[in-house]
Amino acid sequence: MERILGIDPGSRTTGYGVIVSDRGRIGFIACGVIKASPQLPFAHRLNQIFDGVNEVIQIHSPTAAAIEDVFLATNPRSALKLGQARGAAVVAAMQNGLQVYDYSPKLIKQGVAGYGQAAKAQVQHMVRVLLGLPSMPSTDAADALAVAICHANQFRL
Amino acid sequence: MERILGIDPGSRTTGYGVIVSDRGRIGFIACGVIKASPQLPFAHRLNQIFDGVNEVIQIHSPTAAAIEDVFLATNPRSALKLGQARGAAVVAAMQNGLQVYDYSPKLIKQGVAGYGQAAKAQVQHMVRVLLGLPSMPSTDAADALAVAICHANQFRL
Repeated sequence: MERILGIDPGSRTTGYGVIVSDRGRIGFIACGVIKASPQLPFAHRLNQIFDGVNEVIQIHSPTAAAIEDVFLATNPRSALKLGQARGAAVVAAMQNGLQVYDYSPKLIKQGVAGYGQAAKAQVQHMVRVLLGLPSMPSTDAADALAVAICHANQFRL
Repeated sequence: MERILGIDPGSRTTGYGVIVSDRGRIGFIACGVIKASPQLPFAHRLNQIFDGVNEVIQIHSPTAAAIEDVFLATNPRSALKLGQARGAAVVAAMQNGLQVYDYSPKLIKQGVAGYGQAAKAQVQHMVRVLLGLPSMPSTDAADALAVAICHANQFRL
């Protein structure tokens, strides 16, 4: 049995989701978003991401972390911002002794929606169905849960 | 009097330099590089950067951090890598309670070499002269010292 923390990093909003997985059977534990204050200097926002991920780990004690291996075809400027946010989230997990696993957006979508080009709404819907959630998670939280589910499937944990 | 940690982030090699500044008079304290093992998974390398910066702060007790605000016109893929390395370094400084100041490469070069387009070798040479170093620092360490000097000049600390 493993408790998996999924992370969907972003410079404004970082989604997180925690699930439990027992040989392919998955269950929901928690999900939400870490908001970085846009009015603060960027270094402070990165620190909020680190603190937020750290807090989620303290509360939910995951045993592994899975994070989207973002690689988008936009401009270097935004890639640099997103990269810093991702770096802050990754080191927060590593500093807590978690192994960090990377998954491509395509593999994540395939894992939850059966189709690598699935739309955000489809991912959201399937995450809700697979985890039996009473209501629809936000897109960022759903993406984070999707990464966690992808990791569970990958290892048949 | 302020002790300034300058950081030149990179996904393979992160340069660092610590100087002391007393109302415009600057002195050398330490410099070096933090190497991330290229054979390790990327998350581990980011963690090495975090640990390395953290260790430098523990040893030299800087009171502020200055870091190059990288923004290079290369592809999004490498910007994403560099961004993550920068993010790891920034949160290490923030987690130690340091204020983190960003400086553009142009301003840094102008500050030490009097010319925003100065070559790496010029920056290296001027850093050596300004700090009275007995030998030439490596380029990464020199870049880190240059950011620290830039910060000292900026505030006439």
